[in-house]
Amino acid sequence: MKRPSVRITDVAALAGVSAGTASKALNNTGQLSQETRARVRRAAAQLGFTPDARGRALSSGRTYTVALLTTDSSGRFSIPIMRGVEDVLSAGELATVLCDTRDDPLREQSYLRALVARGVDGIVVTGRRTEPRPPIDVPLPVVYALAASTDPADASVIVDDAAGAAATITHLQGLGRTRITHITGPAHHRSAAERAEAVAAALCTEPLFGEWTERWGRQATDLVLRQRPDAITCGSDQIARGVCDRLRELGRSVPDEIAVTGYDNWPVMALASRPPLTTVDLRLEDLGRRAASLLLEAIAGKPHHGVLELPAQLVTRESTLGA
Amino acid sequence: MKRPSVRITDVAALAGVSAGTASKALNNTGQLSQETRARVRRAAAQLGFTPDARGRALSSGRTYTVALLTTDSSGRFSIPIMRGVEDVLSAGELATVLCDTRDDPLREQSYLRALVARGVDGIVVTGRRTEPRPPIDVPLPVVYALAASTDPADASVIVDDAAGAAATITHLQGLGRTRITHITGPAHHRSAAERAEAVAAALCTEPLFGEWTERWGRQATDLVLRQRPDAITCGSDQIARGVCDRLRELGRSVPDEIAVTGYDNWPVMALASRPPLTTVDLRLEDLGRRAASLLLEAIAGKPHHGVLELPAQLVTRESTLGA
Repeated sequence: MKRPSVRITDVAALAGVSAGTASKALNNTGQLSQETRARVRRAAAQLGFTPDARGRALSSGRTYTVALLTTDSSGRFSIPIMRGVEDVLSAGELATVLCDTRDDPLREQSYLRALVARGVDGIVVTGRRTEPRPPIDVPLPVVYALAASTDPADASVIVDDAAGAAATITHLQGLGRTRITHITGPAHHRSAAERAEAVAAALCTEPLFGEWTERWGRQATDLVLRQRPDAITCGSDQIARGVCDRLRELGRSVPDEIAVTGYDNWPVMALASRPPLTTVDLRLEDLGRRAASLLLEAIAGKPHHGVLELPAQLVTRESTLGA
Repeated sequence: MKRPSVRITDVAALAGVSAGTASKALNNTGQLSQETRARVRRAAAQLGFTPDARGRALSSGRTYTVALLTTDSSGRFSIPIMRGVEDVLSAGELATVLCDTRDDPLREQSYLRALVARGVDGIVVTGRRTEPRPPIDVPLPVVYALAASTDPADASVIVDDAAGAAATITHLQGLGRTRITHITGPAHHRSAAERAEAVAAALCTEPLFGEWTERWGRQATDLVLRQRPDAITCGSDQIARGVCDRLRELGRSVPDEIAVTGYDNWPVMALASRPPLTTVDLRLEDLGRRAASLLLEAIAGKPHHGVLELPAQLVTRESTLGA
């Protein structure tokens, strides 16, 4: 499988320039005419020349590698964030190193030491919860995604959960629903508390806190039906799917009698639900892209500070609109 | 956040040796006494010294970085495989670079060029399908995980799907079930075809091929009920969940009247199903660990050849055993 590797001198010979000129042309340095740069690039493309990233790393003092440090072993949240990060970084020819800390502080410390020793250019820190987290202690540019750093001097990109939850209420009220109730996850989870608080003013009952499970959605449905709601907003798609299942089993029509909304736009739940769920998409790929862009700016010496909140997006489907 | 970095000369001073001796002690090279090595290591630990991985890379000609190239954007299969790969590599202080090709051959080519330029030590190739795939063309050690390479000279680690599917039949027959039927995904998917073939001899009806969806599980249930099965084995947990839902809606008891098995042990489906599913766990973390171990051996100059099949594991739950 070995193939002979093309060297910069081969490219220079084909382009009719010196190796030094070829190197400048490919690295976008030095004073060269556009025409010379173009000729060298064509020669490099023709020969399939791949510049030695290690040489570039040495001469620039950079490794062109960024780490994504995540506590989300399931990948539910970190995979779309990673796609966004990778989108931006790979366009800039940076590699993304993945480090899954599995929510273990010792593992996190050990990764951070290895990343510093390795000389990565920067780190994106993410996880599966939205609770602000203590900053990591490294002499490198860092951006926090999904969960903000508790240090306001750090750069964080998070989802505007309150606005996302409020959008479900505006949507339901626009459909004429007035007796709205809310079923969500554990009250001590920031994502549950924030979503519940954002919808509280519109509710006809107290929010019901429980678990992030379909089972809880089914159980809570029985509890809230006594209040005769015409809409149930849920803190997650899993809960909403459970609500829809239970309502169907009770012979209650969704959305004619009771409209239902989820949260997350997790396809395996939101689309498999009967009916498919109106829900809130966290736009996690966007979040990853923004975090990576901020990190690139920090690496270039222009760090941002503070928390940037990105909008979530209401996605409407049959659970509120009907077939 | 910058902190002063500790240098090898600081470690040497504290240990009372020369910088050269300290370097040899930390790199496990040279002729030094155990005692000297231990003293240098203690000094390094005391000062929080992190050796410069780039220096090590230069002197060894290695980057201590391995790439995981995946076509599985959802992460359903690649996340557990990645955890396994990372387990083995991070224990050896290698970093895992993630490259998500999104099933796009151009993107794959572009990643491979970048990885070669970067000088990664090796590549693990994985994806979301089990169909053998054409080998990648790089002058580096490569191991294929989940989907084998079509080149028998390459090293591949895959799941023994036929044995996994056969285990569900043995289990059902052990429970006295005799009229077994099979519902699965598209016939042109290797994972569907192989699982169907492995159970064919035990079936009372032809396998039903369709989609990897809950909806297909519900629809197919109506089709197979005419044959009065006492067990339905499914090619995926999603299909099995749909089967259980439809049977419950028809008032048929699972497993008393009809036992149901899934495939994949995907928690969000297998555990949320009513009842929870007896299913086959692909042990993807193990797969990742084995692939990474084979890659390390290849990097050390001892490449393996051919396809290694790892066993899947039957996981029994209420859908066959009852409450």
